[in-house]
Order: sequence, then structure tokens, then C-alpha cells
Amino acid sequence: MSAGGERIPPGATIGVLGDGQLGRMLILAAARLGFQAHVLAPAPATGALGPAAQVAARFVPAAYQDETTVRRFAQACAVVTCEFENVPAAALAAAAEQTPTRPGVRALETAQDRLIEKDFLREIGLATVPYRAIDRADQIGPALLALGGDAILKTRRFGYDGRGQRPIRDLAQAEDAFAAIGRAPAILEARAPFVRELSVIAARGVDGGFRAYEPAENTHEDGVLRRSQCPGAISAPTAGVAQTAAKMILDALDYVGVMGVEFFELEGGGLVVNEFAPRVHNSGHWTIEACAVDQFEQHIRAIAGWPLGDATRLRAVEMVNLLGDEASDWAVHAAKPGSFLHLYGKSAARPGRKMGHVTRFL
Amino acid sequence: MSAGGERIPPGATIGVLGDGQLGRMLILAAARLGFQAHVLAPAPATGALGPAAQVAARFVPAAYQDETTVRRFAQACAVVTCEFENVPAAALAAAAEQTPTRPGVRALETAQDRLIEKDFLREIGLATVPYRAIDRADQIGPALLALGGDAILKTRRFGYDGRGQRPIRDLAQAEDAFAAIGRAPAILEARAPFVRELSVIAARGVDGGFRAYEPAENTHEDGVLRRSQCPGAISAPTAGVAQTAAKMILDALDYVGVMGVEFFELEGGGLVVNEFAPRVHNSGHWTIEACAVDQFEQHIRAIAGWPLGDATRLRAVEMVNLLGDEASDWAVHAAKPGSFLHLYGKSAARPGRKMGHVTRFL
Repeated sequence: MSAGGERIPPGATIGVLGDGQLGRMLILAAARLGFQAHVLAPAPATGALGPAAQVAARFVPAAYQDETTVRRFAQACAVVTCEFENVPAAALAAAAEQTPTRPGVRALETAQDRLIEKDFLREIGLATVPYRAIDRADQIGPALLALGGDAILKTRRFGYDGRGQRPIRDLAQAEDAFAAIGRAPAILEARAPFVRELSVIAARGVDGGFRAYEPAENTHEDGVLRRSQCPGAISAPTAGVAQTAAKMILDALDYVGVMGVEFFELEGGGLVVNEFAPRVHNSGHWTIEACAVDQFEQHIRAIAGWPLGDATRLRAVEMVNLLGDEASDWAVHAAKPGSFLHLYGKSAARPGRKMGHVTRFL
Repeated sequence: MSAGGERIPPGATIGVLGDGQLGRMLILAAARLGFQAHVLAPAPATGALGPAAQVAARFVPAAYQDETTVRRFAQACAVVTCEFENVPAAALAAAAEQTPTRPGVRALETAQDRLIEKDFLREIGLATVPYRAIDRADQIGPALLALGGDAILKTRRFGYDGRGQRPIRDLAQAEDAFAAIGRAPAILEARAPFVRELSVIAARGVDGGFRAYEPAENTHEDGVLRRSQCPGAISAPTAGVAQTAAKMILDALDYVGVMGVEFFELEGGGLVVNEFAPRVHNSGHWTIEACAVDQFEQHIRAIAGWPLGDATRLRAVEMVNLLGDEASDWAVHAAKPGSFLHLYGKSAARPGRKMGHVTRFL
């Protein structure tokens, strides 16, 4: 094929920064297409291999701050990607000196800081909940008043799965809340009166090609995703708006790869972007069973410069996370016809830890 | 679950003898269920990791004859299996001293020798083509006469994908044919006047539970599988006979795991068993896209003592092998909606070598 020269051919090595379940599922998809994977991540304290390292051709245990090792790692790879968004941008930049990194540093930097992320979303014309930057405790009072008296204090950086967050409904809670998040630079977000949480998993190729999966309806518990369903109770116009918003984000970042974009659907039908993750996304795991090309293969296709695959949903499905001890019910799930069990190879089932998921046809 | 104690739990290590594409796809299926895999196989001459080793948590390069290393390998595994049938039975026996091997030595020994295999099939009451044992060239003449004058000389051992085979239609060809197969112990098989080749992929669990996939219709070229289609032009009664025959074989061998059984459908509708392979099978790759639980996950479930999965076919599909240079067309296949590309990560595309396959919905 004429454009074949720009494509990373099968047999090449894909570098993954991070050693979690998203990396594992990316590597399984890459292997199906004939690639092999190298993983760089801090050495696990247990000495056991992590979820991604278990299926990688090579595991390089190193701190992300060890940029010499990151550079050497990248040299051996045809492309480097991230499986989680809190890889230090400097590590990705070091890798980018050696080999293409997809997505790039800008997407990572934007997603890593809630303030930069929300400012970016507003700049490109997308709606978010109202928010204020918080650097000192005494800024919380005026901000809370301006936001209507019901808000969530969140660290700007390193938050995920509900960590680094505290609700504030009363000025008296401000000091404790700020202390609870470590007095880190933060934003105060107005609580969105949402009727529904939804997400779009979208991909953009090296050539700017775009594919979005159908939005899934998501349910969170204690800040952690519990369940995604597709189709959800989402109207066609709302789905279209969400997919268009995702395209605006990916285009504005000149993004290459798969991204997960989370939305709140407000009372009255309005849609605001909650946040986006510059990687494959938990709320897209349903695509493994429901789509011809799932989010993991889609990401590999995108970063390898391959044509994006068919994102059409072929089945109605729900995906339920197995958190902590829930994974000990694996035998029950394995015995149920129409249930697809996925386990991540994690040794310690800490409470709330994502140990696996089950997808079911609806 | 009450029977949970006999099951190998997620997180355990599955040992795979062999480093080919079947091992690779087994390991990808095992990873989805939370297992990790170790691979033992001879070190590749190129120094590159082979298809299975690329996705294994650990690769042990060793000759199968190195029984000390095989024993040590098996010690680290909760169960050991084979991804090809020509692993020396002694290696499997050495592994079995340390840990369960599934399937067991008997299945391997039976399948490794065409004479023992056919004698076994007859003993349990299944039809085969007529055949004669050949140890010396002068036995070929009488055997050829007895078989009707049209036959195939095959080595008893180490034959696959048409290797070690020579057609004989004329007594004058006997000496050359025997020389061509290295004067190895052989059998002469009557050529079956078949109208169709079909195969059944079947699984048997530790508890004797049985699941068979729907038979696929197969096309071979130069002794190598080219194409499998399911459903094929196979009548329901014929399909039932084939599945029953598979069950007889698995039960008689007290088999645990997935087996591929190949049949000839003769003019007039009779069915004879051609051969069986004590492993997942090329003619079962279509199950990845077409079935809830594919042959690879089914094998892992069986050898781990898990309940067997749903083998129902949900889609009409065909699978076409990519042999040798055909894999260089990967970009064409990757761009076709409804085509599922699988590449095995092999570095050298020797003529006729199985480099990958493509499955298409029909």
C-alpha cells in the first residue's frame, strides 16, 4: 500500500509507560496484531511482575524520573505510549527525544492538571462546571459563595478514582477539606446537578482520522467507576454532542491515540465535560466484546499509524468492575454463560482496587 | 464455590511447552483470565523471542531433552500444557513428576505416531482409512495392492502440515517415496475419496465435562490448512457424528484440554477420522471471533479445572491462513471492516510458514 511506509509494521516494538491493567490489555491487543511490547515502570515492591509486565517481551524496572533509562527504553521502541495519565511529562519528553510518543506531551500535561484541563476545555468552546483555582485556604470561602455554596475541592494534580477530593457544602468545612487534600494546589468545582454520567471513547490517527465509540452511561460509587452500559439512556442528539466535543478535544490537542472523555448530562439535557484521560479508559472496556475493533486495538492502530478500525457497536452490553475482594468471586462469573470475565493478574486485592471486570450481553 | 478448591486460581502460572503461535494465543487467553505464563522451548537461532515467549512472563530456553530444566520449569507452574504435539513424551513425563500436565503423556504418545493413533481409533470403534504399517521398502508393494493401488506414504512420527508425506500410485514410485521420507518407520494410508474435510474442536474438563464446537469445513493446499469455514456444507447428522467421535476419543484418552479432530467426509456421506492433534488447532481459530468462549480460553479453562465455557457459534465466519509472504499484505487486511487480522510475531516469512490469519464474518 502506498501509505505503508509511514506505518509501523508488525514485528516492531511498542513501548508502554506504566504497568497496570490498561497496559496489559493494550499489550494483548498489540500482540494480536503481531507487535511485541516493552514496559517501563517502577519496580513493584513485591518483586512480582505487574499486570502489563507479565505479558511484555521486556520489563524495564525504573523510576520515571530516571530519564537516562527512559531514553534507552525509548530507543528500543518504534513508538512509546502511556497507559496512565500520571506519567511525568518530563519522562514522556525524554522518550520523545528518541522516538515518537503518542499521545504527546501536551495532551499529558493538559490532562494532568485539573485547572489547565478546564481552562483548555473552555478555550476551545466546551462547557464545564463553574470552577475556581484554589492555592490558599482563604480563597475557598469566596469561591464557594461564587459557585453557589455546594462544591467539590479537588487537587489539581495526581487525582484519580475519587482520590484527592473533598465535598464542601459549608464554609466551616473549608479548612479541614484543604488539609485533607494536603494543602496542594487545587480547584473548587461547582457540584453539577447531573442526571447522568456518560463517556465517549474516541480515537484520532496520525493522519487526523477520527472514530468515536457510542457513548456509554456510567455509574460511579465512592468516586470509582462501578458500571458502564451501552447503549445507555442517552438520546441521539446528546450522543452526537458528546462525540463532537470529543473530536474538538482530540483535534485541538493534535492527539494521536485513544482518549476517554467523561461528561455530566445536566437536568434539562445540557452536557458539560467533566474530565478527559489521555489513554484507553475503564468506561470503554465494554468495547472488547461489543465492537469489531475494541478501544485497545484502536489505540494500537492509532499510535502505529494504521487505519483506525470499525468502532460500530454490535451488541448491547454492560461492564461491571470487580473491586477488591469482589474478584474472589471469579468462579461464579466464569461459570455464567454470556458473562465475560477479565482479571488483571494483580496479586493484592486491596479494598476498592480494580482487580478485573465482567462484561455481559444485555 | 464448593468445587473451587480443585480449581487453579487466577494469578497462578501456566507452563507452556513450545513457542509457536498456538502458545501465543493460549497465553493471551490465559492473561485475560488473570493467569501468567511461562514458556519452555529451544532457544531460537535468531536470538529473537518467539511468538509465545514474547507474551510470557518468563521464557526458559532449553532443549526438551534437558529434563532437569523441564522439571525445574514445571515446579514453578500450577499446570503444564503443550502447544504442539511433537514435544517429546519424555519431556512431558518429566514435567508430570512435578505438576499436573494436561493433556497427559498418553494423549501425546498416541497422537505422535500415526500407526498408534490409527490403531487406537479402530480400537475404540471409529472408522479410519485403510492403512498398513511400513518398516521396509519391500512392504510397500503388497500394502499398496491391498489398499487398492492409490495411497499416501507417511512417516509415523514428526509429520505435520504435509511434511513427511509422499503419494504412491505406482509400485515404481515406492523406493523413491520411502527414500524421500528418510526410510523412517511409516504407514501407507489408502487415499480417501473424500468430498469434504472437516474438523471438530472439542474440550474435556478435569471433571469429564465435554464441549464441542460446531464442525468447520476445511480446505488444505499442499498439505497445509488454507481456509476454515463455519458453518460449512456439513449436514446436521454428519456434524453430530463428528462431535460424538470427538467425545469418544477424548473420553478414551481421559483427556483434559482442547483437541482438534480432523475428518474426511467420504462420497456417500461416511465419515472417517483422519487424525487428531492434542492441542488447540488451526482449524479452530474462527472461534475467537465467532464464539463466546474461544478454543484458547476453553483450553485454559479445561486445564485449570474451571467450568468449560459456552461453545455456541454466534456468527458465520471464515478463517484464512496467511502463509509466508502473504502476511506482507497486513495493511490491506487491517483496512477492511469486518476482517479480523491476527499476526503471530514471527520474524522470518519462510514460504508456506504460518505467519498469521484473517477471520471474516460471512
